[in-house]
Amino acid sequence: MNLRIIATGGTFDKHYHPLTGNLYFRDSVVPGALQRARIAQDCVFEALLALDSLDMKDEHRQQVLQSCQRAAEAHIVVVHGTDTMRETAAVLGSARLDKTIVLTGAMVPYLIDDSDAFFNLGFACAAAQLAKPGVYIAMNGQLFDWGNVKKNRELGRFEALR
Amino acid sequence: MNLRIIATGGTFDKHYHPLTGNLYFRDSVVPGALQRARIAQDCVFEALLALDSLDMKDEHRQQVLQSCQRAAEAHIVVVHGTDTMRETAAVLGSARLDKTIVLTGAMVPYLIDDSDAFFNLGFACAAAQLAKPGVYIAMNGQLFDWGNVKKNRELGRFEALR
Amino acid sequence: MNLRIIATGGTFDKHYHPLTGNLYFRDSVVPGALQRARIAQDCVFEALLALDSLDMKDEHRQQVLQSCQRAAEAHIVVVHGTDTMRETAAVLGSARLDKTIVLTGAMVPYLIDDSDAFFNLGFACAAAQLAKPGVYIAMNGQLFDWGNVKKNRELGRFEALR
Amino acid sequence: MNLRIIATGGTFDKHYHPLTGNLYFRDSVVPGALQRARIAQDCVFEALLALDSLDMKDEHRQQVLQSCQRAAEAHIVVVHGTDTMRETAAVLGSARLDKTIVLTGAMVPYLIDDSDAFFNLGFACAAAQLAKPGVYIAMNGQLFDWGNVKKNRELGRFEALR
Repeated sequence: MNLRIIATGGTFDKHYHPLTGNLYFRDSVVPGALQRARIAQDCVFEALLALDSLDMKDEHRQQVLQSCQRAAEAHIVVVHGTDTMRETAAVLGSARLDKTIVLTGAMVPYLIDDSDAFFNLGFACAAAQLAKPGVYIAMNGQLFDWGNVKKNRELGRFEALR
Repeated sequence: MNLRIIATGGTFDKHYHPLTGNLYFRDSVVPGALQRARIAQDCVFEALLALDSLDMKDEHRQQVLQSCQRAAEAHIVVVHGTDTMRETAAVLGSARLDKTIVLTGAMVPYLIDDSDAFFNLGFACAAAQLAKPGVYIAMNGQLFDWGNVKKNRELGRFEALR
Repeated sequence: MNLRIIATGGTFDKHYHPLTGNLYFRDSVVPGALQRARIAQDCVFEALLALDSLDMKDEHRQQVLQSCQRAAEAHIVVVHGTDTMRETAAVLGSARLDKTIVLTGAMVPYLIDDSDAFFNLGFACAAAQLAKPGVYIAMNGQLFDWGNVKKNRELGRFEALR
Repeated sequence: MNLRIIATGGTFDKHYHPLTGNLYFRDSVVPGALQRARIAQDCVFEALLALDSLDMKDEHRQQVLQSCQRAAEAHIVVVHGTDTMRETAAVLGSARLDKTIVLTGAMVPYLIDDSDAFFNLGFACAAAQLAKPGVYIAMNGQLFDWGNVKKNRELGRFEALR
């Protein structure tokens, strides 16, 4: 069963810049994380975007959709910022592809102490292989349908709408 | 959907002992890992055993089975050593419980650099929620039926038998 | 030989805030770092300030000076932001205390991957015990006199003036 | 001021072997640690031995001595196992070289959670530059003369004899 992992940026993939003191994007951490995970099956990595999800515009979401459409794989994980993960999931979900697409991200960057990123990546890789075709968000140890999820910004976690 | 995580020891849970220079078991790392994962749903942790899986005997496997039987939860993750994970899975599988039980572990301890443990835990937590009732092994980014898996000791990874 | 470690904030001590996505100050990481260092001798920790060094004003530098003056210990490490470390060192140096005071910090926060912080703390603790009375900056594996050092902002490292 | 770092193995430098579950030696972690430390000055790394210090024999200690004698640098750090650090220090100390030689190591390997290794390396690098010629042991945030130190095995720390 082939799996594609598409990186788009987000908190998951932020690095610390020693000269500016800011968090920024450079080479994605995802390939290193996949190697560390010792994944034995075929797993294709695609570095599509490197954006804070607040900076994601319609055209970027269309790029994500096109990548999912073009992909030979029917099981896809999209690493994405949490702030507009729901919006991208809605674009992907409305396209009704016959694929299982799981968006995930992190509340703390992969490279920072106490990060949830590596757990979330594992959770999403399982969900992309096991859930029936559709578009989902995997965060906080739970799989949400794209139409039934919101980010609770006060608590910093995802919740079902109903 | 309630989830139970049962720790039995294994590589996943080994600590380094500064006085002896050996790896050993003390308080399980799993509760800390679950907190770091920011799991929002109900998730019960049970510290059942703290054994190298090569030291696991029939009586220990029966204890794991009893914990799974007694559990109120229908979705269970068992953190286990990799060397006899298949044997414990066979004991659990033969009991034909109406639950989804996923065994996972690690090739490198959670507390050691470059560990796969946190990814595997995430993968197993998703699989325990999404796979149909049965007993599975989750390692190397893949979910195996308990009757169709072996550990390839030369390569240090799990593979399907057929 | 007693040692005092004074935390004032700076990159060394920054945490990631999961809700805002910013780096900020909360409980200092220094006590945990000292415990991890397995320091056996008497070592007093003082949480004096929690400031980005660009936000440090004269009054804050006076507070650092007063802490050094009041200290019972003759060997002092000051954990400080790198951007104005030289300015604080100049205030301390001009006071001509009969103590060995070593300022150190980090180019990458202690809690972020690939941080130099823990090495720098070790370096500074040795320098505070071994250098003759005076005020120094310990960065990049080198000990600089306070009057003969500048931060090269392009390269992100400290250099002697001459 | 030139500095030489000589690796001889010891707890500091142990890796976890995923296939055997044992700790072992492979490429030294020291060059990576020095890079992470952002050392700006000239610093020569020498991978001399890769031994558990309990396996160190007279001939190995002679090799360490010869490396120190041959070195162009007058400031030397020797990364060494803690169990016989004192014995090697005695061999080096008896040779009365006109150099500052600091032995250090770790109670927990560099690659394992909560390791003191990186702090100790920083401490030793400062001591090798600042202490007067002689042979020293740098552990637990303290610098000991080679003739006035022992490892307290019950507490897992170094102490002065008097």
